[in-house]
Amino acid sequence: MAKVTAEISMSLDGFVAGPNQTLEDPLGAGGEQLHEWAVRTKTFRELHGQEGGDTDSDDEICAASVPAIGAIVMGRKMFSGGEGAWADDPNANGWWGDDPPFHKPVFVVTHHEREPYVVADMTFTFVTDGVERAVELAREAAGELEVGISGGASAIQQALDAGLVDELRIHLVPLLLGGGVRLFDEADGRAQRLEQTSLQESPTGVVHLTFRTT
Amino acid sequence: MAKVTAEISMSLDGFVAGPNQTLEDPLGAGGEQLHEWAVRTKTFRELHGQEGGDTDSDDEICAASVPAIGAIVMGRKMFSGGEGAWADDPNANGWWGDDPPFHKPVFVVTHHEREPYVVADMTFTFVTDGVERAVELAREAAGELEVGISGGASAIQQALDAGLVDELRIHLVPLLLGGGVRLFDEADGRAQRLEQTSLQESPTGVVHLTFRTT
Repeated sequence: MAKVTAEISMSLDGFVAGPNQTLEDPLGAGGEQLHEWAVRTKTFRELHGQEGGDTDSDDEICAASVPAIGAIVMGRKMFSGGEGAWADDPNANGWWGDDPPFHKPVFVVTHHEREPYVVADMTFTFVTDGVERAVELAREAAGELEVGISGGASAIQQALDAGLVDELRIHLVPLLLGGGVRLFDEADGRAQRLEQTSLQESPTGVVHLTFRTT
Repeated sequence: MAKVTAEISMSLDGFVAGPNQTLEDPLGAGGEQLHEWAVRTKTFRELHGQEGGDTDSDDEICAASVPAIGAIVMGRKMFSGGEGAWADDPNANGWWGDDPPFHKPVFVVTHHEREPYVVADMTFTFVTDGVERAVELAREAAGELEVGISGGASAIQQALDAGLVDELRIHLVPLLLGGGVRLFDEADGRAQRLEQTSLQESPTGVVHLTFRTT
């Protein structure tokens, strides 16, 4: 069965977005620094239809991850770019534009029923039966490839707590944000050991950590 | 001037002690797992008057840190072993016993005035003027050596926020505790970049990270 991986960039103080998120600034104050290591890479730029970019070890991390994933699960806020958009207009098309950088099926965990949204080379499918059902559908779509849970924090926590995540990949960024969206809220019963299976340094000081749930 | 380092073991979800701390269990549920990498080492056992212990790379981490530090700053809870002891008896002698493992001057940040407490080969000095004053006194005591802020979370945060910490050493343990005492609470104005200056893997899956504040 397809392996399920959750992957996200986190500050040393545990945040995956900074404080004061808005629709215009969905990463919050300082949050864009979480992704600097990735956005400068060749692989990232290609996904976004851009040329150029760095080809160092950070690019290798991106280049290894992207083709391994056959389908993506994300939370509603990650689709709509924060709190505002969806609530104002349930048919808004998120903030990913007319050429989203995913290029594979995306399953959005949401409370709002909606027909699939086809855009460019991909389809967003909206799943109202919870993260387990979203992962199940993504597994069918991924075939032999991995299912990637790409955020936000809530979707990753729900998947972890439901025992759905085989591998957790954290890009630990040498940064204190002082507030924002925590990857890990407090959660009764979450206590578990992980197995640290790989570790790679980055020219940008980011530490790429992979953990297997046991 | 003496370098000030803060050093602590933290779970991947950001906790330095587990939930439900008590005087008998000051590390909280599951919290002892944060320190397993250290307590099994030769250096740690020697500090506690015990023989034997492992001599692998985790021991090298401990063996490098201990002689570099000339004086220690800690918070009141770390001295007294949690919330209960001191509040019940302001003259209680903490939970470090009659042969504390520090073997160098310790400055305890507290609201309770108290005469210095001399025990075995060391003295606990109680500082009621805040963490800056405690660090100042520790600097005088440390001479050319480092001042080590060894916890708890509150003392480290206060020192970080006051700009007193030169180097932050985090032992990142592959573990989710799901609750307890966070190293990093939310704090307005804490946002800062750090420089990741060293990284060492452990046979136990712990990642030893050193950051310089910039």
